[in-house]
Amino acid sequence: MKLATYKDGSRDGQLVVVSRDLSTAHYATGIAHRLQQVLDDWNFLAPQLQDLYEQLNAGRARHAFPFDPARCMAPLPRAYQWADGSAYLNHVELVRKARGAEVPENLRTDPLIYQGASDDFLGPCDDVVVPSEAMGIDFEAEIAVITGDVRMGASPEQALDGIRLVMLANDVSLRNLIPAELAKGFGFVQSKPATAFSPVAVTPDELGDAWQHGRVHLTLQSTWNGRRVGLCDAGPDMHFHFGQLIAHLATTRHVRAGSIVGSGTVSNPPVEHKGRLDWPKGYGCIAEKRCMETLQDGQPSTDYMRYGDTIRIEMKGRDGQSVFGAIDQTIVAPGGE
Amino acid sequence: MKLATYKDGSRDGQLVVVSRDLSTAHYATGIAHRLQQVLDDWNFLAPQLQDLYEQLNAGRARHAFPFDPARCMAPLPRAYQWADGSAYLNHVELVRKARGAEVPENLRTDPLIYQGASDDFLGPCDDVVVPSEAMGIDFEAEIAVITGDVRMGASPEQALDGIRLVMLANDVSLRNLIPAELAKGFGFVQSKPATAFSPVAVTPDELGDAWQHGRVHLTLQSTWNGRRVGLCDAGPDMHFHFGQLIAHLATTRHVRAGSIVGSGTVSNPPVEHKGRLDWPKGYGCIAEKRCMETLQDGQPSTDYMRYGDTIRIEMKGRDGQSVFGAIDQTIVAPGGE
Repeated sequence: MKLATYKDGSRDGQLVVVSRDLSTAHYATGIAHRLQQVLDDWNFLAPQLQDLYEQLNAGRARHAFPFDPARCMAPLPRAYQWADGSAYLNHVELVRKARGAEVPENLRTDPLIYQGASDDFLGPCDDVVVPSEAMGIDFEAEIAVITGDVRMGASPEQALDGIRLVMLANDVSLRNLIPAELAKGFGFVQSKPATAFSPVAVTPDELGDAWQHGRVHLTLQSTWNGRRVGLCDAGPDMHFHFGQLIAHLATTRHVRAGSIVGSGTVSNPPVEHKGRLDWPKGYGCIAEKRCMETLQDGQPSTDYMRYGDTIRIEMKGRDGQSVFGAIDQTIVAPGGE
Repeated sequence: MKLATYKDGSRDGQLVVVSRDLSTAHYATGIAHRLQQVLDDWNFLAPQLQDLYEQLNAGRARHAFPFDPARCMAPLPRAYQWADGSAYLNHVELVRKARGAEVPENLRTDPLIYQGASDDFLGPCDDVVVPSEAMGIDFEAEIAVITGDVRMGASPEQALDGIRLVMLANDVSLRNLIPAELAKGFGFVQSKPATAFSPVAVTPDELGDAWQHGRVHLTLQSTWNGRRVGLCDAGPDMHFHFGQLIAHLATTRHVRAGSIVGSGTVSNPPVEHKGRLDWPKGYGCIAEKRCMETLQDGQPSTDYMRYGDTIRIEMKGRDGQSVFGAIDQTIVAPGGE
């Protein structure tokens, strides 16, 4: 099934069930008001939502209305956890190579994950407010999952069973603040402002064969100022699958219902073409593009985002239809929302 | 006023108002069930809780019952944000000096803060479950505040106005996992298991003159296996006050109601005595004790905690009464709770 949260002036919004083709929606009011309630009591509430979803798809839901992504908050407008991995190693390798740094020895065995702020997410069409263009404004096109309860010590396989919903994320990054925060070792605080999520979160079964062992085998599209800059394969190059990322978190603590875990920027490795590296699938963040330019030409030539820039992130199913709806945001100065 | 959350089998527990002397309590049911509700709508709900608090203190609350800290969850059993600072620079300086590392140039102007997990806090008397003693189990005695909404770009003074409640924290740390996570630069994930909080969270006015400009001028007591190891002044050596820590978080994003911000280990600088450094006020975490030993004797002689060890963290007011109640926990192996 597909779930979204409509803005209603409250902090948590109103849960709606959305039809498979994203054309219609229906308030879940009789079942649950908020998505966190459903995650807290999944086995009882999810089947009821599934029934409503099937009625909606069959055109039999009596109070259905046209679905409007612009009215959406993040599926979970605030969450008890947001932990974002770097599961696509090409992203890490590219960034390190471009600055001449070593790739860590244990990169392939020990996932990089940072704990992010989860008190104030953005809806898919909400403006991205950044205090200054000089901060180096970047998007990051990612996949994220929402979990149920996963016990401390869970194996990656057990953790896979804890995945309830899948969605897309724009993990907005302020690149020029990152080096100083990385040097402090304490993770990202100021360099990661509010993250945005896709209009709709879907249960893994909605992905059909494209959901394989904790990976989404579909193409993630990034469109910057109307220009398609990334058509990245989200499947095979995800080195750590979501079960492994969640199990990493759960090594020394329980992971509770409503935790959101991100994949990191979806990224594919280069191909060599006439002695020159090339990335034919494009990029899921501008930092990568700048690293590609540095490796190719000795220096970056693409600037970060400016006020007024737009970013659209979307994933189509094998039937060509949008699975999650599109993240579609504009960068604005404070007071410009 | 003083607020606590009683265990009732649910994820968020039941909000109770606790008398100033911590002897009696009263369910807040008629006003709010959960503390997060109150934080979401503070101006409307807090005055009603204050009325109940005054009735309770006057012995006029009709359904008062004896207050039992053992029945408490954390005041906020799960939160939308837990960000922990290192505001006591002696803690940072001690740790760096002991391993021969430089103290960062900007330590006095740029706060160290890490984003922690907030999906699964421990109550004040809950066991601390750690997978292995070899992980280097340590306590950290801290002060923490819970905020209301603080807008992006708020000044430290404005952020001070956003402080709603004050409490104590035991920011349990797994010391032997920290060096590898620090080296990754992405902050603490596995090395910081579930944090515990004091039975009671109090509004700043409860602290009277001891609350000065975002600092608590009282003594934080740490008692390890029944032995008093720390009597640390929480006031003057807190280099960054809570308003500064919150403003640091709010530089590039809004900080939303129910965010918890920690002080870091309360720590006082050494005095020199006969040419030898001494820390007469003791320590608020074992890592500090080991650093003191390293500086004094060339190597640490105190081991980290073992299964069965206990840690009690408490703060007395100027009247000698416990302000927040005591954190009182036992370290146990998985399955031993």
